[in-house]
Amino acid sequence: VSPRPRVLLTGGSGFIGSRVIEPLLDAGYEVHALGRAVAGTDRVVSHLVDLLDANEAAIVAEQVAAEQMLHLAWYAEHGRFWESPENLSWVGASLSLLRAFVEAGGQRVVIAGTGAEYDWSKVDEPCLELPRGERAATPLRPSTLYGTAKHATYLVASAYAEQVGLSLAWGRIFLVYGPGEDQRRLLPSVTRALLDGRDAPTSDGAQIRDLMHVDDVARGFAALLASELEGPVNVASGEGVSIRQVCRLISEAAGRPDRLRLGALPRRPGEPESLVADVARLREEVGFHPAVDLDQGIADAVNWWRNAA
Amino acid sequence: VSPRPRVLLTGGSGFIGSRVIEPLLDAGYEVHALGRAVAGTDRVVSHLVDLLDANEAAIVAEQVAAEQMLHLAWYAEHGRFWESPENLSWVGASLSLLRAFVEAGGQRVVIAGTGAEYDWSKVDEPCLELPRGERAATPLRPSTLYGTAKHATYLVASAYAEQVGLSLAWGRIFLVYGPGEDQRRLLPSVTRALLDGRDAPTSDGAQIRDLMHVDDVARGFAALLASELEGPVNVASGEGVSIRQVCRLISEAAGRPDRLRLGALPRRPGEPESLVADVARLREEVGFHPAVDLDQGIADAVNWWRNAA
Repeated sequence: VSPRPRVLLTGGSGFIGSRVIEPLLDAGYEVHALGRAVAGTDRVVSHLVDLLDANEAAIVAEQVAAEQMLHLAWYAEHGRFWESPENLSWVGASLSLLRAFVEAGGQRVVIAGTGAEYDWSKVDEPCLELPRGERAATPLRPSTLYGTAKHATYLVASAYAEQVGLSLAWGRIFLVYGPGEDQRRLLPSVTRALLDGRDAPTSDGAQIRDLMHVDDVARGFAALLASELEGPVNVASGEGVSIRQVCRLISEAAGRPDRLRLGALPRRPGEPESLVADVARLREEVGFHPAVDLDQGIADAVNWWRNAA
Repeated sequence: VSPRPRVLLTGGSGFIGSRVIEPLLDAGYEVHALGRAVAGTDRVVSHLVDLLDANEAAIVAEQVAAEQMLHLAWYAEHGRFWESPENLSWVGASLSLLRAFVEAGGQRVVIAGTGAEYDWSKVDEPCLELPRGERAATPLRPSTLYGTAKHATYLVASAYAEQVGLSLAWGRIFLVYGPGEDQRRLLPSVTRALLDGRDAPTSDGAQIRDLMHVDDVARGFAALLASELEGPVNVASGEGVSIRQVCRLISEAAGRPDRLRLGALPRRPGEPESLVADVARLREEVGFHPAVDLDQGIADAVNWWRNAA
């Protein structure tokens, strides 16, 4: 019997990370969670460290000497993360942790990137990670500090991986929804307003987005880690849906279509009209297909909020 | 009488940094050197800190509360710096220091970039920082970990500067020569061999490079700091010279043209045939012109090594 491969997991207390633990355990990993306390499982080895303290994180990385790492942690405070100076600290923390992991013998790493790395003025077609056939890759020109910081981390991490022979995949996340989502974000705030019988004002909602259920994103990352894919890969649904349509699904599941106020708010400036991922790499090279249907996922999420209220 | 503006200087003990102190003092700055001990001047306030310790550096940045910063420090160990994992640490250290400087009230920063940020497969024309007239900017696609780490720092620092209203200039350095250069680098090693009467084997030397005397680079950075230029700017001579021609100048100044062995060594793989900077921004927007003539600069450097031997 070969020993279980050890994986260092960061962000294990977060929205996606907390959902990735089960898939990792199911896949046979010995999971070492680095960072804040992980809730509700005694099948994970928790290492409580401040990931922004490079020395502290490096010491644990050396002790664990994991073969693999899944780095999801980043500053994610709602409304602030797009432009917060915390993004600068997370570039450094991520690169320090990567180096410590490699120097302790690490062989395979998956890091969370973002659809915000793409040039949002050039996303009329689905965002493509690498050139394919006659199509060029979508240019990478982030318009936010968050997207820039993630992209810069990708550039350095990739060059370092090539230098030291590390297998690295960079999973770009688009819109994620589901139980546990920050209640100040669009879908939960609309859901909670409607469940409370209040008005739910939104923008016109004509924007097309790529939504993926958090359980699918988490399973996608676990599958990506276990695969041999290297380089950038969109971890997304590949399906475009309008925000209007999503809000309508919520309003129906909440039983209050009368309270949805589409068009009552202006749009956030700088948002692209359409932001959808090309998912051929995830489908064909990782072999991953999402399991949660959007209608069902939204209905379940509304129910979750109903019970959480 | 208005108080002298305070400048935080990093890398003040290094090849360029040690030469930038006088021009900064001449320009009226109160110079606070952060990092290793600075030699030979009691007109600088020295703060001995490990710049890779973000907390330590941040405390000093807060205490000094400088209006301006000139950040030259980076890992520069000869032969190793191109691909060393230390590059990862310097990305984080640079961004942490920048943030601490800004949060302590910093208004203007100049950071050292590199000609290695440019795509070396696309440098047939002089490297251009920004589009000008009908000419597109030279693409930025570094082929080394060093160039990638510097470029990533540029991307994040620029986005952050825009976010917080910081005035930031990014000075891209090309080839620098002169007294104090690392003795293992090409020019000093040829010089020392010839002064010792030994053979000096080199590559064919047909590569065209942009050489600037270290005193000019240092004065250029001081002028750049005092200017209002923002964004990327090449701090270079704008003149292409062949390495062969430089080696011949050295051999003549050393009085041993007979010992120069051009073509005895292979070239370093991946080097571009020609790497010359467009310097219109430095000349026209900063108003800086180099003072040291190449022939004279080489002769002086050879003399310096003769006396240092």
